[in-house]
Amino acid sequence: MSVTAPRGFVAAGVACGIKASGNLDLALVATDDAAPVACAGVFTPNRAAAPSVQVSREHLRSSGGRAAAVVLSSGNANAATGSRGRADVDTMCELVGAGLGVEPGAVLVAQTGLIGIPLPMDPVRRGIPALVAARAPTADAAAAAATAIMTTDTVRKESVVRGDGFTVGAMAKGAAMLAPAMATMLAVCTTDAVAGPAELAAALRHAVDGSFNRMTVDGCMSTNDTVVVLASGRSGVTPSPAALAAAVGQACGELAAAMVGDAEGATKVAHVVVQGAASDAEAYRAARQVADSLLVKCSLNGEDPYWGRVVSELGAAPVAFDLDRVSVAYGGTTVCAGGVAADHDTEAVRAHMAGRSITITCDLGLGPGQAAVLTTDLGYGYIDENRGTS
Amino acid sequence: MSVTAPRGFVAAGVACGIKASGNLDLALVATDDAAPVACAGVFTPNRAAAPSVQVSREHLRSSGGRAAAVVLSSGNANAATGSRGRADVDTMCELVGAGLGVEPGAVLVAQTGLIGIPLPMDPVRRGIPALVAARAPTADAAAAAATAIMTTDTVRKESVVRGDGFTVGAMAKGAAMLAPAMATMLAVCTTDAVAGPAELAAALRHAVDGSFNRMTVDGCMSTNDTVVVLASGRSGVTPSPAALAAAVGQACGELAAAMVGDAEGATKVAHVVVQGAASDAEAYRAARQVADSLLVKCSLNGEDPYWGRVVSELGAAPVAFDLDRVSVAYGGTTVCAGGVAADHDTEAVRAHMAGRSITITCDLGLGPGQAAVLTTDLGYGYIDENRGTS
Repeated sequence: MSVTAPRGFVAAGVACGIKASGNLDLALVATDDAAPVACAGVFTPNRAAAPSVQVSREHLRSSGGRAAAVVLSSGNANAATGSRGRADVDTMCELVGAGLGVEPGAVLVAQTGLIGIPLPMDPVRRGIPALVAARAPTADAAAAAATAIMTTDTVRKESVVRGDGFTVGAMAKGAAMLAPAMATMLAVCTTDAVAGPAELAAALRHAVDGSFNRMTVDGCMSTNDTVVVLASGRSGVTPSPAALAAAVGQACGELAAAMVGDAEGATKVAHVVVQGAASDAEAYRAARQVADSLLVKCSLNGEDPYWGRVVSELGAAPVAFDLDRVSVAYGGTTVCAGGVAADHDTEAVRAHMAGRSITITCDLGLGPGQAAVLTTDLGYGYIDENRGTS
Repeated sequence: MSVTAPRGFVAAGVACGIKASGNLDLALVATDDAAPVACAGVFTPNRAAAPSVQVSREHLRSSGGRAAAVVLSSGNANAATGSRGRADVDTMCELVGAGLGVEPGAVLVAQTGLIGIPLPMDPVRRGIPALVAARAPTADAAAAAATAIMTTDTVRKESVVRGDGFTVGAMAKGAAMLAPAMATMLAVCTTDAVAGPAELAAALRHAVDGSFNRMTVDGCMSTNDTVVVLASGRSGVTPSPAALAAAVGQACGELAAAMVGDAEGATKVAHVVVQGAASDAEAYRAARQVADSLLVKCSLNGEDPYWGRVVSELGAAPVAFDLDRVSVAYGGTTVCAGGVAADHDTEAVRAHMAGRSITITCDLGLGPGQAAVLTTDLGYGYIDENRGTS
């Protein structure tokens, strides 16, 4: 159960033939009566943004933050495909709109896969009517949709959060908003809470900042990253902005954790926590510097508690820093204090590093700022996934 | 022949026992009469800079840009070693100064190796007198010095450039100023040109910006990066600032190319050229974004001309960008034009990707800005080198 858990939504997933494997590759999330509802989106800041991102942004802007459906496809990012790519996205909106009986402008599009290859439109044209026909308010339909957006994902990613009288459901694929792996991070959230476009947008921004933007696999930013939330209002409950943001944030946080856990070729998940920074923003920058470091990630792969690299990355981060005040702990065992090696229980650290989940806590000793970023190790698997596209 | 090629310099390299392997690990470059001469340095901006960097900076500042000797060691970075690390560097300066008969303040120090481990001072104390005694103005002595600074390097890195009446010699270890691999990038240049500290500093800054700062292996910035130049004036020739900068730049450029070619675990060297940018500075930022991309580096490893990732990184770079104007070529064969796939000779591209040296040329189609950055592929070898410190 995910995007169909809140009242008022249907979903579907079909195989139309974009993927040569025959796997599911076309997904739909829509309101059950095809009526446009409040909607908000967060999109990649990449200036090579795909046509799907450009069109979805435009539709949300023209409609004042309302949409009836999101159609998603996997296997081809339809990015760097020029005017043809744009026309193909417009066609998808027309076909979905025609099937549901809504204007094309009420349809958003999200796509993921290889860049630079024209979208095979014959399968898409044939597939959309079947997709629309398959829509249902069931858990199976939601599961099919979540499956149809997978690319290198090995597991489907869904979450449901129950609020006070309302529900949030969500599905996603990929590795992380600001740091996707092979292609892209896509997510669709639904809720039956009553919320206007502006409060929905605020809740989503907060949720994305606290989840998908707090993880990294390889630091790369996709052309297609898209997160969308739709609110049917069908619960009749109007949560406080904080309650809405918390529920959407929790749903996104669960998906984010699932993404890092499923990151391409990863054998470790690391929580990089920075505290004692001058501000939360500086803590985030420092944590991200450590989390994005290839040297740190190689150390994680080798289960090597080489805190010297962590300290070096903290010193390279654009934040206030005094080496003499820095401490670093692995799994709660302090290995560096006052900027130098600390006597410690090496067996405890060894055991912690041998686990799949590793926590690196860095204290800058300067202020109240704190933040955490999720990352993965760098091993052969990542290279195997990404050295070729065939 | 390298640092002893210009008149007025001696060098030495010995094994003192920092490295358990027994390999050479202590090096000296000094003026042949131990007289302080004009000197300039460029050091890591890392705020966790090692004591050797702090002391060398201070000595150059106090002396107004003059030094008589540089002592270098490998196998231990003496970084994150606190007040003890600082005292150990001071001791090294005293011992070298005593051996040469100069003030400790006329000695600079550069170190490379593991972070966070106290420097083994007994070997260093015993080694420095032997090092000073071994100094000689010969090619063999220079080769010993260049060997003694190697860590994961597989080849010694030396260069000599003949100017109009003067000579520049240089040695280096490591991978790149702004992007060292296992530990650190160190370089020492010597020249017999007549030059004051200020013009030497300007020439070195120009040389570093055009060489060591134009390459990347993993984007990490070391605690110990150090580049130093000493000018004996012994040729009696005062080159123009441009001629001096050109010669130092060429020497550094040759070392930089040698570093990338010897990068840890690399199987490919890629020249990422960006032209048509709004400015040279924007071209550099865009080229660096592509050159640092893990996804691009994995593609290089797999010999996969996946230009979509290149375009995505260009779009993610903080520069003016219009996808419709972008073209990308591999080895001169255009694979993307106007932001979309271009028909091309796939066999020519395949053959180019199969070579060790790959050129990716990106034209942003916006202005006159251009820049080039050297990078490497990302393969198993890098992980093997960096997953453990033992």
